Amino acid sequence: MLLASTDTNWLCEKFNYAGSGWRETFVSFGTCSIPEPLESLEALGLVPADLLTNIEKEEKIVSDIPATSAAAVYATPGFGVANLPYGSYSIGEEAGAENTRLGLRLGETVLSAEGLGHLAGLPADLIGLLHAPNLDQLLTADRPTWDRIRTDFINFLSSADSADAVASVAHSIDAVTMNLPFTVADYVDFYASEHHASNVGAIFRPDQDPLLPNWKHLPVGYNGRAGSVYVTGTDVLRPKGLRPESGGAPSFGPSRRLDIEAEMGFVAGHGAPHGEIPLSEAEDHIFGVMLLNDWSARDIQAYEYVPLGPFLGKSFATSISAWVTPLTAFDAARVSTPTREKQLADYLDDSHLAPGGLEISVEVLVGTEVVATTPYSAMYYSPAQMLTHMTVNGAPLRPGDLFGSGTISGPERGQRGSFLELSWGGKEPLNLRDGSEMSFLEDGQTIGLRATAQTTRGTIVSLGEVWGTILPAT
Amino acid sequence: MLLASTDTNWLCEKFNYAGSGWRETFVSFGTCSIPEPLESLEALGLVPADLLTNIEKEEKIVSDIPATSAAAVYATPGFGVANLPYGSYSIGEEAGAENTRLGLRLGETVLSAEGLGHLAGLPADLIGLLHAPNLDQLLTADRPTWDRIRTDFINFLSSADSADAVASVAHSIDAVTMNLPFTVADYVDFYASEHHASNVGAIFRPDQDPLLPNWKHLPVGYNGRAGSVYVTGTDVLRPKGLRPESGGAPSFGPSRRLDIEAEMGFVAGHGAPHGEIPLSEAEDHIFGVMLLNDWSARDIQAYEYVPLGPFLGKSFATSISAWVTPLTAFDAARVSTPTREKQLADYLDDSHLAPGGLEISVEVLVGTEVVATTPYSAMYYSPAQMLTHMTVNGAPLRPGDLFGSGTISGPERGQRGSFLELSWGGKEPLNLRDGSEMSFLEDGQTIGLRATAQTTRGTIVSLGEVWGTILPAT
Repeated sequence: MLLASTDTNWLCEKFNYAGSGWRETFVSFGTCSIPEPLESLEALGLVPADLLTNIEKEEKIVSDIPATSAAAVYATPGFGVANLPYGSYSIGEEAGAENTRLGLRLGETVLSAEGLGHLAGLPADLIGLLHAPNLDQLLTADRPTWDRIRTDFINFLSSADSADAVASVAHSIDAVTMNLPFTVADYVDFYASEHHASNVGAIFRPDQDPLLPNWKHLPVGYNGRAGSVYVTGTDVLRPKGLRPESGGAPSFGPSRRLDIEAEMGFVAGHGAPHGEIPLSEAEDHIFGVMLLNDWSARDIQAYEYVPLGPFLGKSFATSISAWVTPLTAFDAARVSTPTREKQLADYLDDSHLAPGGLEISVEVLVGTEVVATTPYSAMYYSPAQMLTHMTVNGAPLRPGDLFGSGTISGPERGQRGSFLELSWGGKEPLNLRDGSEMSFLEDGQTIGLRATAQTTRGTIVSLGEVWGTILPAT
Repeated sequence: MLLASTDTNWLCEKFNYAGSGWRETFVSFGTCSIPEPLESLEALGLVPADLLTNIEKEEKIVSDIPATSAAAVYATPGFGVANLPYGSYSIGEEAGAENTRLGLRLGETVLSAEGLGHLAGLPADLIGLLHAPNLDQLLTADRPTWDRIRTDFINFLSSADSADAVASVAHSIDAVTMNLPFTVADYVDFYASEHHASNVGAIFRPDQDPLLPNWKHLPVGYNGRAGSVYVTGTDVLRPKGLRPESGGAPSFGPSRRLDIEAEMGFVAGHGAPHGEIPLSEAEDHIFGVMLLNDWSARDIQAYEYVPLGPFLGKSFATSISAWVTPLTAFDAARVSTPTREKQLADYLDDSHLAPGGLEISVEVLVGTEVVATTPYSAMYYSPAQMLTHMTVNGAPLRPGDLFGSGTISGPERGQRGSFLELSWGGKEPLNLRDGSEMSFLEDGQTIGLRATAQTTRGTIVSLGEVWGTILPAT
């Protein structure tokens, strides 16, 4: 077995970015300095079989394209030409608008989107969409345009000798600063995981049916705060607010139950000023996918939320990936949504449509330790259903509208995407590798999300990670 | 008694725009063609005493300034130099960005803000803030800047012979199209009227305490949809959605309980990227005031709202005035907020501060008929408390952030700002003047909000009206 590159950094990236099957290996290697060729590792029994399978899949993709192509030279597992996510990067110390450009990620390299457009011979009107500091302009276009640009880029990057040409528009990812990839218009947060909704119901309303009567009839959602959506790496200041106390009157102070919500985020493009987007057309309006951490102060939320829902318990920070992967990249990672227990209204009925779920595995990390691995495929409602629901009342869709799936949780304890669930409301703290226990987030902790889809085409598509460190309340 | 103008249109405007005391007179005059000088009307017993008082107040203001000033020539009651609201106007059939400008309203005249800046001799940096299609640029400035510009404008407009100069930057309000006055960043809706919250609680939870335990400890609020905030005059399409049915499963169709919420809206300027704005500084971040109608589909809302609050029942449309009156214009219309039944947390305690309430009377109209007159002065939480609360968790404040007070209701039946309350959940329909009954909104109805403050300085400050016509579901 030969890899396209035996560079250890490249292999480290595999361990760092890959999906759930590789977790134990990642943990075993710790800081990931890999001392041996892969064959030796295998012989030593250090590489589990499914890791080999994944690497073989990547190898197949890489082997299909010329060795002198950018795709072969620059790609890393999860960030090959099958992914090609967009982001906003700045060069130099001054991250002003003039130094900020729309880019694409290939491996550990950031390519100027406009520069790549010229190299790929795109017509001027399409290059115009890429001559921008972020995704905002491209989001105003439509799916045929997005897919045309993507196809041209993949073809060019896979062509012989493209590696040399690409060098002129390439930056090392370490040499740039990543910004919010688009201007968030409205931000909506859904609650689309049955396991999460059931867990939360069981924790807060132990003597009732954990799912409320509306849950299997519509994707429950609410509006969040667009102005506090931040790019990965932004520190999170522990919020202050009113917390419930047993005496009746609340107390004011820093949140004692700071939490995460591991979610998938979707950004809308191709706006619809009058809403009412039919389910069959919904994906024409979903440009791309990213990881999203909806930081949550459970105590503040618990006190404030009746009867109008979450407000300050959620509005202090929401973190998203720097990289937005086009929805098209997941075409070969489709899965059916779960069988419907209740008949959905016609506008939400997806039984006659192609599978709307996504086979993506999401990991939750405390520092370097993976504490949960959650299956996005278990979500009850698809992204298309969420978007259609959001607009069925005539609400306009704007390019840059962001919606989150809600916490992704699976049926097992290790598949829960929030610490509220992982610690069962604080009653069953987690045991961390260093011997400590934790229930909710502590100051100084760094929390990460990472995710990978393994497509039926044999490619691996990773999402940009989301990290944030908790700073103490001021 | 002499009026500054005896033009009948001018007097009609008094009837159309003035506060609750004039209601019966307005109703009596119907389409408002006033045949006689005011003295004759008084002699005929057609003008109630409080109307005369209001007109005398206006007259006093007008009499203090030279007859050749723009303030004397252009002003109408409620829209004199004591008001001077900002808006975005377009000239010509193409309402493109190049034809759209920031303007100020004086009477029935729209003045170019930039043009007025030149006439008033403002320095170039301040004129730069006014050279814009709407308020967005000015909102990025701060209170001293806003007040400096306002004072210079009032002084210029009140100076002798300014009327002639102003003609060069003036348009009749009938000759322009009004647009959304600013780009809405985030939109938050509060629930700050004790009478409204108590009424809603009594209607929906008749066997419980109508106010939930948190209500007197914090201003309950939630995030709304910024993308569906429209300027007055925008038609409202009846929304479709899932409606509760007695059988258990919901039905899908047009809302059967379409409603309004008569609210005051406040727009933030002078952003605070790290939130945490102390109560004593909150008003430095509130640029201005407008009327706001938070259209609400009560049946859709009732089905969807547990446990995460309103979503599609509210997100289809929110209407605001075309004109934003600077908060400073209400300096002489301050009133104390109600005595606090529960001790507020320090960050919300306004007992040591100047009065934070506003003496503004809001009328709800069905066509030309006033069906309710609600007192904004009865609101439990002040605009400053709402803004401080919204940012206490570190949520950033952005210029263009809009927040609504929540429905304004007083203790009496005729003081309720929603049809849910006016019809007591549909059980006690209203009798309209034409003999018909109504509970919720019917297709084809036109609903209006108008409001006036009568300040202790003797001036009358009216808010721009908010109108919307219900179109049938498609």
